[in-house]
Amino acid sequence: MPDFYELPEKPDKAELKERLRIRRDELFSKQMIIKEKKIPVLILIEGWGTSGKGTLISNIIKNIDPRFFKVCNINKRTSEEQRYPFLKKYFDLIPEQGKISLFDGGYMSEIAHLKVSGDLTDSDYEEKVRSINVFERQLVEDGYLVIKFFIHISKKEQKERIDALISDKNTKWRISSHDESQNKHYKDYLEAYRSFIDETNNPFAPWYVIDGSSENWAQLQALDIINEALDTAFSNSEISFPVLQNAFPLKKVPKLSSISLKDKTITEEEYDKRLDELQNRLHELHNVLYRKKIPVIIAYEGWDAAGKGGNIKRIAASLDPRGYEVHPIASPEPHEKARHFLWRFWTRLPKDGHIAIFDRTWYGRVMVERIEGFCSENDWKRAYNEINEFEKELVDWGAVVIKFWVQIDKDTQLQRFTERQNTPEKQWKITDEDWRNREKWDLYESAIDEMIKKTSTTFAPWHVLESVDKKYARIKALETVIESIERKLK
Amino acid sequence: MPDFYELPEKPDKAELKERLRIRRDELFSKQMIIKEKKIPVLILIEGWGTSGKGTLISNIIKNIDPRFFKVCNINKRTSEEQRYPFLKKYFDLIPEQGKISLFDGGYMSEIAHLKVSGDLTDSDYEEKVRSINVFERQLVEDGYLVIKFFIHISKKEQKERIDALISDKNTKWRISSHDESQNKHYKDYLEAYRSFIDETNNPFAPWYVIDGSSENWAQLQALDIINEALDTAFSNSEISFPVLQNAFPLKKVPKLSSISLKDKTITEEEYDKRLDELQNRLHELHNVLYRKKIPVIIAYEGWDAAGKGGNIKRIAASLDPRGYEVHPIASPEPHEKARHFLWRFWTRLPKDGHIAIFDRTWYGRVMVERIEGFCSENDWKRAYNEINEFEKELVDWGAVVIKFWVQIDKDTQLQRFTERQNTPEKQWKITDEDWRNREKWDLYESAIDEMIKKTSTTFAPWHVLESVDKKYARIKALETVIESIERKLK
Repeated sequence: MPDFYELPEKPDKAELKERLRIRRDELFSKQMIIKEKKIPVLILIEGWGTSGKGTLISNIIKNIDPRFFKVCNINKRTSEEQRYPFLKKYFDLIPEQGKISLFDGGYMSEIAHLKVSGDLTDSDYEEKVRSINVFERQLVEDGYLVIKFFIHISKKEQKERIDALISDKNTKWRISSHDESQNKHYKDYLEAYRSFIDETNNPFAPWYVIDGSSENWAQLQALDIINEALDTAFSNSEISFPVLQNAFPLKKVPKLSSISLKDKTITEEEYDKRLDELQNRLHELHNVLYRKKIPVIIAYEGWDAAGKGGNIKRIAASLDPRGYEVHPIASPEPHEKARHFLWRFWTRLPKDGHIAIFDRTWYGRVMVERIEGFCSENDWKRAYNEINEFEKELVDWGAVVIKFWVQIDKDTQLQRFTERQNTPEKQWKITDEDWRNREKWDLYESAIDEMIKKTSTTFAPWHVLESVDKKYARIKALETVIESIERKLK
Repeated sequence: MPDFYELPEKPDKAELKERLRIRRDELFSKQMIIKEKKIPVLILIEGWGTSGKGTLISNIIKNIDPRFFKVCNINKRTSEEQRYPFLKKYFDLIPEQGKISLFDGGYMSEIAHLKVSGDLTDSDYEEKVRSINVFERQLVEDGYLVIKFFIHISKKEQKERIDALISDKNTKWRISSHDESQNKHYKDYLEAYRSFIDETNNPFAPWYVIDGSSENWAQLQALDIINEALDTAFSNSEISFPVLQNAFPLKKVPKLSSISLKDKTITEEEYDKRLDELQNRLHELHNVLYRKKIPVIIAYEGWDAAGKGGNIKRIAASLDPRGYEVHPIASPEPHEKARHFLWRFWTRLPKDGHIAIFDRTWYGRVMVERIEGFCSENDWKRAYNEINEFEKELVDWGAVVIKFWVQIDKDTQLQRFTERQNTPEKQWKITDEDWRNREKWDLYESAIDEMIKKTSTTFAPWHVLESVDKKYARIKALETVIESIERKLK
């Protein structure tokens, strides 16, 4: 490894001490600029066992105000964590604007270990590498600074450290069987680390290999890089990225205006019969899903007063309450707005075998946030691809992803608004904002057409629920959910 | 293909016409900003045979002043071009600041064709993909805007176009056997294009797939993207990139100050004998190189008055003048300064079987340009890695790369300067600038130490020639050249 990365030359003791002092002061004064410029900083610290990851982190944070950073100990994936998509564990921990998250270990250790132990097929490995590259790119394009360190020590050095720690009964506990096995299979790990670094060494989030042979020296190298990376981030704080063309297989979809609504009706009698049949079937399927540990994500979007609530109710009614959750999505809270817009959805994912129903979703980015100017043009244009990438992660994980657009026409909306307004017990359901949004119907309609077109991927297509007759829409929703699950179970 | 990339929806005729008019005007007014902001723009246009690459280019350039662009027809690699490294063909054609180069076809066609026809091993394919990613990254980091188009048409569409062109005797000549074979093996090409796009779809230089089903529509898509990409480039014109850690295997090298010089001498008698032997041997080797088509690149750097000229003369004296060239490198001309700093070296590479001797080199970037402030700090810090990447391309191509640092001490330089000053026929060799540089000896020395340390790769290491005794240095140079060549021939 040292031969493959240029390591800076260690200065003598006096110079090291002096440079450390300068760099520590520098970082100290920069923490306020990070806050002012609202830059979220993710520092990933990887390295050999006993290379001094923990020590390095303590040294870095020594001069930072505790309100500005968080250290995340990334441990072996728990059985709980294994029930979620691979990236969730890391996405959950991303810092908010103006703060620093330090990852003590992370996806590199996790993947290299699985690779060396033979617990990962080549294609799984490649899929994970791709996920990580997407993860880092999404963060950087959102204004994050991502700094990645690998602390390197030689096989001999590692052996000596392990032996020294073991020989002292006070430190013996710090050495795990994994450390010893890593030293034994040093070459295999070296090879795994090298390939991983090569495959994830992105210009937007490069790796830095640090000589871990001595504590202060490692600290200085890290502080040099952090300070320089911060300078770059400060001067680049206003850059915009080219919007990547959407590279996912798409289904052809009709425009909203071409969808006929009035003929989509169902008789009372037929409705009662079908509702009963379908709810029973969904109830059965929920058990199978639970047993087979298949997660289901149902996303609802639609016009105000289109009947989302009643529709969701009919789905939920068939489900065992211990196995599903409905997430009503309002406008983001300050701590949510301070992170990547997908964060609040990553953190709300269901575990395997469970169902999550989202009442409004991540598509807010390309509808309300776009139209009301709550994000930049570059933000929402980038989002189509980011959303497809997000849903791809879910599908690759094994989830069934079902997206509903609940559709009504403008007249039907007016009729329902008026009815709400005139019915005392329904008045809470209608606000001034609803009326204001209604005025922007055409703007919304073209944004929705664009959204459906750009995100109707073959793996997570949109389903339009024609909801002038709400009962028709409910039956269609149930049918669609059942079909999607049955297809997955085949 | 269309399924895998989101193609925008074709507007109706009237809208298309209007939007085209607007976008053409926009591009027209942007050409002056490109010039003012000194942005070099590379537009790569790839696509299926008969997809309309040429037509698209004519349409794009229609509204641009001819002084601002150049169309480069990238044809099948000639036998002459095959004698150079893969990237040279493309590096030679990069635009200068403020100008646009349009590549009519390029590396994608070249590589996909070789892949489909089975003329490229997997590892060769990967090496070329890596080279292209390095090429694009180096350009973008240097401020280039790189836009890549792929014009897509269906198999059926392509077949119809081919048939139509063949049936008319005036257009028959436009269809090559390659076009017909491509249509026959459409699926294989589709697969090759898809993987190539995936592997080179860099956020800093993304691909855009264009629906080539109709001429004006293709034009509008391209103009939309070019105009948006230019806006992004204009607003990003001052960004700085993180400096990638040098990821090449390095040799450990001593500092200049620790190299003993006074003891490196040779007697007159021994010199005459060895010089004769070595020059004869090099002469023999030159023939073998020529026959085996192995290129050799010898790079000379050293202190003023260190004896580079005389040293080069002793190497050149053994060589057949038809098979070598000496390139004296002065400060860059305006047209050279307006391009990536490596351009003037790419264009001066020897063909296979030939020897190029560079009297001063691409290392000027990290010596004089660094110290005199002729480039930004980000520029020279980035250059170590860029240079290693450049030399790696040469070595992968099959070249022997030999780099000499001709070393003397400060006193010896003073003595030689004084002698030059006092000898009328040598006075031309000494200028005020030499004296000024001498004053910065210490600055230079530490820059040179850093340079040698960061670019002493295992595949292209530095050799220090101790040249207080110039004769000793000449013998060592000849020996080193011979050894390096013999190692390659083994």
